[in-house]
Amino acid sequence: MEAIRHRVTIDAPITAVYEQLATREGIASWWTRDVRGESRVGGDLAFWFGGSEPAAVMKVVELVPPRRVAWHCIQGPDDWRDTTQTFDLREEDGRTVVVFTHGGWREPVEFLHHCSTRWAYFLLSLRSGMEGGKSTPWPEDEKVDIFG
Amino acid sequence: MEAIRHRVTIDAPITAVYEQLATREGIASWWTRDVRGESRVGGDLAFWFGGSEPAAVMKVVELVPPRRVAWHCIQGPDDWRDTTQTFDLREEDGRTVVVFTHGGWREPVEFLHHCSTRWAYFLLSLRSGMEGGKSTPWPEDEKVDIFG
Repeated sequence: MEAIRHRVTIDAPITAVYEQLATREGIASWWTRDVRGESRVGGDLAFWFGGSEPAAVMKVVELVPPRRVAWHCIQGPDDWRDTTQTFDLREEDGRTVVVFTHGGWREPVEFLHHCSTRWAYFLLSLRSGMEGGKSTPWPEDEKVDIFG
Repeated sequence: MEAIRHRVTIDAPITAVYEQLATREGIASWWTRDVRGESRVGGDLAFWFGGSEPAAVMKVVELVPPRRVAWHCIQGPDDWRDTTQTFDLREEDGRTVVVFTHGGWREPVEFLHHCSTRWAYFLLSLRSGMEGGKSTPWPEDEKVDIFG
């Protein structure tokens, strides 16, 4: 199995960072403005990036305030189906460390390379927004490459 | 073995992108301003980010204009020792696709998460600089987290 891994440290309280990951409104501030569904364990969240259907739908599998958010992809690109996304948070020197893993990829396809760069971009968007800068969720994002 | 994978598409000719990866001056424009050594097959490149020794030294193992640059890490963080960095380039719709892989990690340590986000940041720096924006090599980079 292959995985995309990232880490950012954010100069903000862990409870505030957790809110950005655990609530629909929070996620909308850094990944995509168009999040639909319910962020509760067992609920589904649909992530839209334009188009006639969501780019991905995740089942929320863990919400452990303020330490962990975990999703399981139930709809989306074939390569994403049954992959998992986890955000593990901890405090360190008054800041919040976010360790991200998008695991369960079956093959190291080029789309994984693309998604890895995109995840970094959006995690930096999260960080920037929380540190008083500009966050860049879709559709305000810069396109990283040809698949947008 | 674990790997960091990224992809960016750059609106610039493949030969120009190749130069940014295959020459010391090119690398200095997007990764670190302080690159020392010789970018020739068999030569060593030392990448400095301040401090009293280079953060990493890579042996240049492949230079295939304008398609591929490959390095092998011979000195640096323990986790980087004997890892490889490859940049594969191709033209697509008048733009240049860069597929990056930092392979050969023995374990999915948290430092891999950190480096993955940092590589994305610097590949986006490369892209931005080539598209008329601002590139952000060290020391002009934004610190992604506590290990700088």
